[in-house]
Amino acid sequence: MKYGARNQLRGKISRIKKGDIMCQVTLDIPADSVMNSVMTVESLEDLGIKEGDNVKIVVKAINVLLVRE
Amino acid sequence: MKYGARNQLRGKISRIKKGDIMCQVTLDIPADSVMNSVMTVESLEDLGIKEGDNVKIVVKAINVLLVRE
Amino acid sequence: MKYGARNQLRGKISRIKKGDIMCQVTLDIPADSVMNSVMTVESLEDLGIKEGDNVKIVVKAINVLLVRE
Amino acid sequence: MKYGARNQLRGKISRIKKGDIMCQVTLDIPADSVMNSVMTVESLEDLGIKEGDNVKIVVKAINVLLVRE
Amino acid sequence: MKYGARNQLRGKISRIKKGDIMCQVTLDIPADSVMNSVMTVESLEDLGIKEGDNVKIVVKAINVLLVRE
Amino acid sequence: MKYGARNQLRGKISRIKKGDIMCQVTLDIPADSVMNSVMTVESLEDLGIKEGDNVKIVVKAINVLLVRE
Repeated sequence: MKYGARNQLRGKISRIKKGDIMCQVTLDIPADSVMNSVMTVESLEDLGIKEGDNVKIVVKAINVLLVRE
Repeated sequence: MKYGARNQLRGKISRIKKGDIMCQVTLDIPADSVMNSVMTVESLEDLGIKEGDNVKIVVKAINVLLVRE
Repeated sequence: MKYGARNQLRGKISRIKKGDIMCQVTLDIPADSVMNSVMTVESLEDLGIKEGDNVKIVVKAINVLLVRE
Repeated sequence: MKYGARNQLRGKISRIKKGDIMCQVTLDIPADSVMNSVMTVESLEDLGIKEGDNVKIVVKAINVLLVRE
Repeated sequence: MKYGARNQLRGKISRIKKGDIMCQVTLDIPADSVMNSVMTVESLEDLGIKEGDNVKIVVKAINVLLVRE
Repeated sequence: MKYGARNQLRGKISRIKKGDIMCQVTLDIPADSVMNSVMTVESLEDLGIKEGDNVKIVVKAINVLLVRE
């Protein structure tokens, strides 16, 4: 399996919050960090994931914003 | 400083690759992971960043795709 | 503070509409124009913004679509 | 003509910078502000736009990031 | 009418699912395929579309992820 | 293999155009339609795809803009 995206991490689902159309999935990634993904509830159901599951996290590089504080 | 985005990490720039319009910035993040950001060369110049600098990495949750392999 | 994005405007929040997962923030920008941002309700709460507040609006150039009518 | 996007502005093209695959279009918008759009060179050629032309600027609200400085 | 985006298809709306802030529109495209668009409910109302209507589907090439399975 | 995205099509690569940082991949999809994906050259190389190969096309629903002409 190969993805055309520069950012590929692994995460473990810590929480799933379902809304009417969209849902928010919170993931633990290494080094005590946290990431979040928002998708449709239908995509969540197709994925068939639940808290505790391990998933791949894919982000295209163009969607990564850098800030110098 | 507060950002309206669910994903905020810290990274250290390990490489900058400049093209004609776009450029690609590679970052080391904790736990031996790597991320990449693509932006315009003009944005890079405005940021004024170079290899070795620490920056904030911001990604809106909607741009995070989950995959179950 | 420097952002790796070509579009940076200033806006004043005129309305906040909260849903279950997502929310919509409407902003007045100069020249009687209006912009809107959609984010998670959690991001809104972290931002700690309310109607009347001034915020920075950041959009990566790749997300700007041009149309010739 | 109706677009399914919350952000619709009008701009006048002040500069076009062409690269090998991507190009960058700079636009003047009201109140002495500037915006930029990045697209493929092929999309630019299909648009058939040049400096001085007026175009519509369309941005989905989800791609608008708010920052409180 | 010209759009600065490489992906332009035609679809017929088969279902509209409205939430509090966001809504999901399902479209039939040729060859028995289906696509979905998520937008704000306000954008849907501005579009003034209903099931059975034909619309244009526009996607910037940068938002298209390729996967080799 | 399951993806958290509402749009999943199959395409056959008809052309690859490489630039310095970014590249553009053109795909034939059913019903004589064409789609395009833009990614980094490095992602293309990781994918290891060439003209004639079949790939999966994944697009999150939020990145699909509808227009009523």
